[in-house]
Amino acid sequence: MKKRTAKKRTQNHKKHTGKAPGTLVYTGTKTDKQLRIESFDYNKDSIKESELTNIEDAISFKDTDSISWINIDGLNSIKEIEHIGKQYDLHPLVLEDIVNTTQRPKIDEYDDYLFVVLKMLYYDSDENIVIEQVSFVLGKNYVLSFQESEGDVFDNVRERIRSGNGRIRGLKSDYLLYALIDAVVDNYFSIIETLGNKIEDLETDLFSGTAKEDINIEVQQLKREILKVRRAIFPLREIINRVEKGEHPLIYKRTLTYYRDVYDHLIQVSENIDIYREMIWSLMDMYMTTISNKMNEVMKVLTIMSSIFIPLTFLAGIYGMNFEYIPELRYRYGYFVLLGVMFLMFLGLLYYFKRKKWL
Amino acid sequence: MKKRTAKKRTQNHKKHTGKAPGTLVYTGTKTDKQLRIESFDYNKDSIKESELTNIEDAISFKDTDSISWINIDGLNSIKEIEHIGKQYDLHPLVLEDIVNTTQRPKIDEYDDYLFVVLKMLYYDSDENIVIEQVSFVLGKNYVLSFQESEGDVFDNVRERIRSGNGRIRGLKSDYLLYALIDAVVDNYFSIIETLGNKIEDLETDLFSGTAKEDINIEVQQLKREILKVRRAIFPLREIINRVEKGEHPLIYKRTLTYYRDVYDHLIQVSENIDIYREMIWSLMDMYMTTISNKMNEVMKVLTIMSSIFIPLTFLAGIYGMNFEYIPELRYRYGYFVLLGVMFLMFLGLLYYFKRKKWL
Amino acid sequence: MKKRTAKKRTQNHKKHTGKAPGTLVYTGTKTDKQLRIESFDYNKDSIKESELTNIEDAISFKDTDSISWINIDGLNSIKEIEHIGKQYDLHPLVLEDIVNTTQRPKIDEYDDYLFVVLKMLYYDSDENIVIEQVSFVLGKNYVLSFQESEGDVFDNVRERIRSGNGRIRGLKSDYLLYALIDAVVDNYFSIIETLGNKIEDLETDLFSGTAKEDINIEVQQLKREILKVRRAIFPLREIINRVEKGEHPLIYKRTLTYYRDVYDHLIQVSENIDIYREMIWSLMDMYMTTISNKMNEVMKVLTIMSSIFIPLTFLAGIYGMNFEYIPELRYRYGYFVLLGVMFLMFLGLLYYFKRKKWL
Amino acid sequence: MKKRTAKKRTQNHKKHTGKAPGTLVYTGTKTDKQLRIESFDYNKDSIKESELTNIEDAISFKDTDSISWINIDGLNSIKEIEHIGKQYDLHPLVLEDIVNTTQRPKIDEYDDYLFVVLKMLYYDSDENIVIEQVSFVLGKNYVLSFQESEGDVFDNVRERIRSGNGRIRGLKSDYLLYALIDAVVDNYFSIIETLGNKIEDLETDLFSGTAKEDINIEVQQLKREILKVRRAIFPLREIINRVEKGEHPLIYKRTLTYYRDVYDHLIQVSENIDIYREMIWSLMDMYMTTISNKMNEVMKVLTIMSSIFIPLTFLAGIYGMNFEYIPELRYRYGYFVLLGVMFLMFLGLLYYFKRKKWL
Amino acid sequence: MKKRTAKKRTQNHKKHTGKAPGTLVYTGTKTDKQLRIESFDYNKDSIKESELTNIEDAISFKDTDSISWINIDGLNSIKEIEHIGKQYDLHPLVLEDIVNTTQRPKIDEYDDYLFVVLKMLYYDSDENIVIEQVSFVLGKNYVLSFQESEGDVFDNVRERIRSGNGRIRGLKSDYLLYALIDAVVDNYFSIIETLGNKIEDLETDLFSGTAKEDINIEVQQLKREILKVRRAIFPLREIINRVEKGEHPLIYKRTLTYYRDVYDHLIQVSENIDIYREMIWSLMDMYMTTISNKMNEVMKVLTIMSSIFIPLTFLAGIYGMNFEYIPELRYRYGYFVLLGVMFLMFLGLLYYFKRKKWL
Repeated sequence: MKKRTAKKRTQNHKKHTGKAPGTLVYTGTKTDKQLRIESFDYNKDSIKESELTNIEDAISFKDTDSISWINIDGLNSIKEIEHIGKQYDLHPLVLEDIVNTTQRPKIDEYDDYLFVVLKMLYYDSDENIVIEQVSFVLGKNYVLSFQESEGDVFDNVRERIRSGNGRIRGLKSDYLLYALIDAVVDNYFSIIETLGNKIEDLETDLFSGTAKEDINIEVQQLKREILKVRRAIFPLREIINRVEKGEHPLIYKRTLTYYRDVYDHLIQVSENIDIYREMIWSLMDMYMTTISNKMNEVMKVLTIMSSIFIPLTFLAGIYGMNFEYIPELRYRYGYFVLLGVMFLMFLGLLYYFKRKKWL
Repeated sequence: MKKRTAKKRTQNHKKHTGKAPGTLVYTGTKTDKQLRIESFDYNKDSIKESELTNIEDAISFKDTDSISWINIDGLNSIKEIEHIGKQYDLHPLVLEDIVNTTQRPKIDEYDDYLFVVLKMLYYDSDENIVIEQVSFVLGKNYVLSFQESEGDVFDNVRERIRSGNGRIRGLKSDYLLYALIDAVVDNYFSIIETLGNKIEDLETDLFSGTAKEDINIEVQQLKREILKVRRAIFPLREIINRVEKGEHPLIYKRTLTYYRDVYDHLIQVSENIDIYREMIWSLMDMYMTTISNKMNEVMKVLTIMSSIFIPLTFLAGIYGMNFEYIPELRYRYGYFVLLGVMFLMFLGLLYYFKRKKWL
Repeated sequence: MKKRTAKKRTQNHKKHTGKAPGTLVYTGTKTDKQLRIESFDYNKDSIKESELTNIEDAISFKDTDSISWINIDGLNSIKEIEHIGKQYDLHPLVLEDIVNTTQRPKIDEYDDYLFVVLKMLYYDSDENIVIEQVSFVLGKNYVLSFQESEGDVFDNVRERIRSGNGRIRGLKSDYLLYALIDAVVDNYFSIIETLGNKIEDLETDLFSGTAKEDINIEVQQLKREILKVRRAIFPLREIINRVEKGEHPLIYKRTLTYYRDVYDHLIQVSENIDIYREMIWSLMDMYMTTISNKMNEVMKVLTIMSSIFIPLTFLAGIYGMNFEYIPELRYRYGYFVLLGVMFLMFLGLLYYFKRKKWL
Repeated sequence: MKKRTAKKRTQNHKKHTGKAPGTLVYTGTKTDKQLRIESFDYNKDSIKESELTNIEDAISFKDTDSISWINIDGLNSIKEIEHIGKQYDLHPLVLEDIVNTTQRPKIDEYDDYLFVVLKMLYYDSDENIVIEQVSFVLGKNYVLSFQESEGDVFDNVRERIRSGNGRIRGLKSDYLLYALIDAVVDNYFSIIETLGNKIEDLETDLFSGTAKEDINIEVQQLKREILKVRRAIFPLREIINRVEKGEHPLIYKRTLTYYRDVYDHLIQVSENIDIYREMIWSLMDMYMTTISNKMNEVMKVLTIMSSIFIPLTFLAGIYGMNFEYIPELRYRYGYFVLLGVMFLMFLGLLYYFKRKKWL
Repeated sequence: MKKRTAKKRTQNHKKHTGKAPGTLVYTGTKTDKQLRIESFDYNKDSIKESELTNIEDAISFKDTDSISWINIDGLNSIKEIEHIGKQYDLHPLVLEDIVNTTQRPKIDEYDDYLFVVLKMLYYDSDENIVIEQVSFVLGKNYVLSFQESEGDVFDNVRERIRSGNGRIRGLKSDYLLYALIDAVVDNYFSIIETLGNKIEDLETDLFSGTAKEDINIEVQQLKREILKVRRAIFPLREIINRVEKGEHPLIYKRTLTYYRDVYDHLIQVSENIDIYREMIWSLMDMYMTTISNKMNEVMKVLTIMSSIFIPLTFLAGIYGMNFEYIPELRYRYGYFVLLGVMFLMFLGLLYYFKRKKWL
């Protein structure tokens, strides 16, 4: 299944190969789903929330004084997105990046808007990590957000807009963008928590000796998951750093503290990922020593059994020979003497292995 | 137990996920303990030390001319901390960071105060490393310190304030902050001393061959401890570097030498940690070769015993056959000749293994 | 075969060693093929495409107002290339680099032209990666491109020029250069897709246990392929970065966004390569643990069989001895008692190995 | 032999230890050979080549208008070199570095001359890499070169000066220096070609299974050779980079392109060395898995033979016992039945090992 | 013994923990030895050398016009050092660093003096590396040096001062400091020479197969020695670099060339150390493959012996059975036929192992 996913991704890029730059090609899974547009239009005092059915309605928010958040779910409908793009004066390459879901997290600064692509992570029902691309366009008093499919981590932001809790209603669109990015980053923590737990479970298994034989497959898969998450999260640091350091006129100075806070969180997530990475390499080492230790134990049993009984069997073989003249065979207590000798040899070898600490 | 700790930490972050930024959520262990506030108010000539019962009292120190150190133990009482925060004009994100004990060491520079978070390390009674977060707010003539629980490494600083030893009483709040940070950093040395001793004990065990089989578990745990300590200490370097290099008006030039000294100590601690890290990787290698060597020895015993006695047993088997006509069996001294032959083979094989240096 | 290629490359360099700098020496495979020159001359309104037979014709495009793309296939004909070089005022070292196919990707900025060398990658019919050098000279209104042999990844660019699709016809030569480089970079994705699939196939084989014994040879070859691709692609990042950052007068500001886009793609390709590299190192580890696990299993079978039957054989040997007086031999049911004892020992050993989890 | 070389090197440094800085101590092998001085004095139109017998003659070239290349072979004659140094106003430390053949490649910029030390590599008759130090002093219209012994890689440069081919006769001393350095760097390619071939031979041996047991010694020696070459070549990159970037008045702008070309070559050599380094580490890994695979095969043979014949031998042992009453022994076809049973067991075990894929 | 040393070091730091900054605590081994003060006072024309008994005398040199070198052996006498410190106006932290022998090499620039700490390395009589701390204070016309104990590497400098050889007598205190540091650095070469020889001895042992079983302990100890040396030497590079680059008024421009020379030497030492480090890691790898190869050989002997004789023994066992009716037993030449069959089997198996290249 993993394999199929990987193939899909690259084939999707191929669909694109050779098209003129700026040609919109959706690289995600095609569905019949329609575009779903949801809008929040608010200022300190009032708020209007609506689900739009007509794209034209989305455009009406562009020049209002109030702050608007237009959230578009589903990147299937290339034409509609192209239409929105034109109305909001977006560069063709921006539109291309929005629908190209293999895009690496990035930031592009244009004169009158800011374009940010990042990855939203969550676990699906099968406990696999799903990576969904989210693009933001930050304008003077609007934020456009584009998601691959419905369902996101923004419910809390919606709630705060509706209730007017916190500072969100009183501030500009740059704070709204911050709130949305912060929601995405906060969610990374629960992802890496799960990764951390998985590593610790494997470690406990290895320590207690209850690890299954195919634990190296699990370790390998965990390693790949970490690589995947790392790749989705790490570029974001540089992006937020650029927002925080940069002097784009759309980001007000008072919001910078908040972006710095997101940046700190990202550093923390990154450090955790790198620690997990180091831990999982250690696990592999642990596993190797465990295997070697087991083999050592197996070898010891074999060696002890063989070393004790092979010489004894040889002795028995000696007296099983059919030579006509073997004097010992005729002794009255030959048999018992031999048994005694054998027993002494047995004890001697036991003692030898005991001293070698193999027993 | 380790595992539980890890889960706790991440679940604690979850408690926070989705709250509006600046919402105070304490992420440590909840206790019934009350806030404990202790204050030092001093100048060159006089000193007043008191344990405060009322938070309002803590605020009275803000505008005095003398230097005040207000130390708050216990981050349970969100409300009281919020109250202090408001009185001292702290940014909501600062308060959020103070009570969020999963915070990475960091420094935030505000116009009229400096906010520093770092980690205090000590061993608890079970010889486990405990990491406690300490936050400092450096104002014009006060230092606020926030700790998770009672008990700290500042007794010596208290003593110096009381007795007027050293320069502390004659200098400003920036020197007080230095003294406190210095106390924390000095304590790191005893932590890494213990780590170093543990590594050397393991090494001695491995060298002398008295290592237990589960030594790789100990090595693994030590590795994790080092990772933990590393992560708590390393970010502090950058912080002190910024204090030393930066030009925050609250840090006077004459104190910079002292901060540089702390910085040197941190570099020294960091180098030691990295050396320990390298040593512990080496230990793992050592352990692997030790296992392989042991297996080699086991195999040699097996091979020698088998190679000597299996051919001899075969010979005995030959003359144990019941063929009607086996001429040797009838020879008068057949048995003794055979014994002689066997003995020669035995010697020959011994010599062969001797020459191969397996004996 | 690989080996031969490597030798060829270095011997080719040798041909060159000791010549005066700027001496043209073609380092690719010699063929009888003639130079093939193809030209596109276009502006917003018109387009003229022609295959040139005479080099002189190639030179006529130099000073037209329209944009010209002159594509030269085959670097065999040193003289003709030298002739073109002189007409276009190219530095001798530029010409030397064009025909030296061992050149590392690079960019050289001259006053009135820009010289870029890069590597075009594709799979030949035997599924081996072929690395072909392509050099570009970007002038005020022309682009010269030099390829080792016919066949390239530019068909799509040709198509866009012919049809007037996209922006290509309306923009300057810097956009043409971008379009050509973009075509090369887009093709890298299909290369790394194939590499990715190979890695995943190997991984699946290892996981499922169906891996052949010589899988380490395949892993090794894959590692070398990745090294090869890495070396061809990585220097290009720096080159595009310099184009994008630099301020060469031939690159107009409006095209920079496009170069930044290529740069992003290259970063993405590079990251993938590095991930594949890490995965393939992991594969080697996986393979080692697989071998060790198999050996463990082999050893267990040996140990169980030996440990069970060697002691039993010893017992049988005891009663096969020919002592005149062995009381047990005369017991009526001695044989059956012994069989019973043997059976019990057998069960006991089975139980012992069961408890050790070796069965 | 290797060892002796290493000791020599360090002992030679010792000779020097404790002398006043600027004291000339030759650290190479002492020979009776005299200094050999060869000079080229040329301009665009004329050329004078001579072998000097008197040092004083070397000094006469200092102030001519034509370009002079004075090449000194043999660093034995400290006094003569000191004499030249004084005439050319060289700093004592420069002279010390010229005769100290353990010097690391470096560049020192003085007001009116440039001092460059680098390493010339070639294979001696025993296929060992020889590292010879070459020092250059670039003055306004002269280049001094100092070599440890006769024989170098400059024949081609001599040829070009004599014949007037290329640009060398028409340009300044900075171009001459470039030509000399370029000759040295060009020679590095043939060195790394040989290294590459050695690695590939080892690899082929490992792949085909024809590797000798002591292949790890060869791998180790190759590793050391690569380390040695790496150390001789890598510092040169930084040096050429400084020449190319720097603004020393003796290096004219028009020559910079040529130095950049040398720099590109050095990058290419360095990349190759690093790739060889990675490949040789891979070889070691390959070798380890090869050993493990072989051991696995050995173990399988042992296990199969033992597991099949040990139980059968036990059965035979049973019926070799001398109990008076063993009913089976008296059956008419007991023997044949047993043989049949044994044969079935044999087949069963064969089938078992077949299914386990051990056969 | 190693262990004790490590403990001592860290316990010594503990002695210090919690003291007010600037409190002098000697962290080396306490002895009864008195302070030993030796002074050189010289200018171009005259020189006065004396051994001081009174500390006050040391102070008299401070303001003379001649250059003075005051060398203090033994850091036991805290009070005297404190006294000197006060007279020379040294910062309390400088004094603290002088007596704290666990100090990392460092440089501190003060307005009218420069403080440098570095490590002097030498082998003691037991061939163990001893690390002794040396601190220098460079003033306008004096250099103070503080050593832990008598005996140093400065004899050559003393000689040059006395005899007036070289430039030392004619230059300022900055050249004196250079000469002292140069003497320390020159000595590093003999340290790393010994390390290099040790590595080569181990390598030779491994190559020739004469390595003892506990060679991994030696390797481990060598690794630690290298770590130790590395840590003592590496920070010095940065220090000299800062002296050379920096613009401290006490370092005259004409001396910079000399400091650059020391810097080059340090780079050379560092590179050697890193090469040794890489070589010793390789040694470990070598050792592992050697072990595996040996085990392989052991296994082959076992397998060959067992595989040949176990089936033959089985055959013998067959005809040792006591069935009443075994036709072969009655054949006249049954025994000889069987012997022949056995011999053929023996040859067949030999041939099989020969073909497998196990023999």
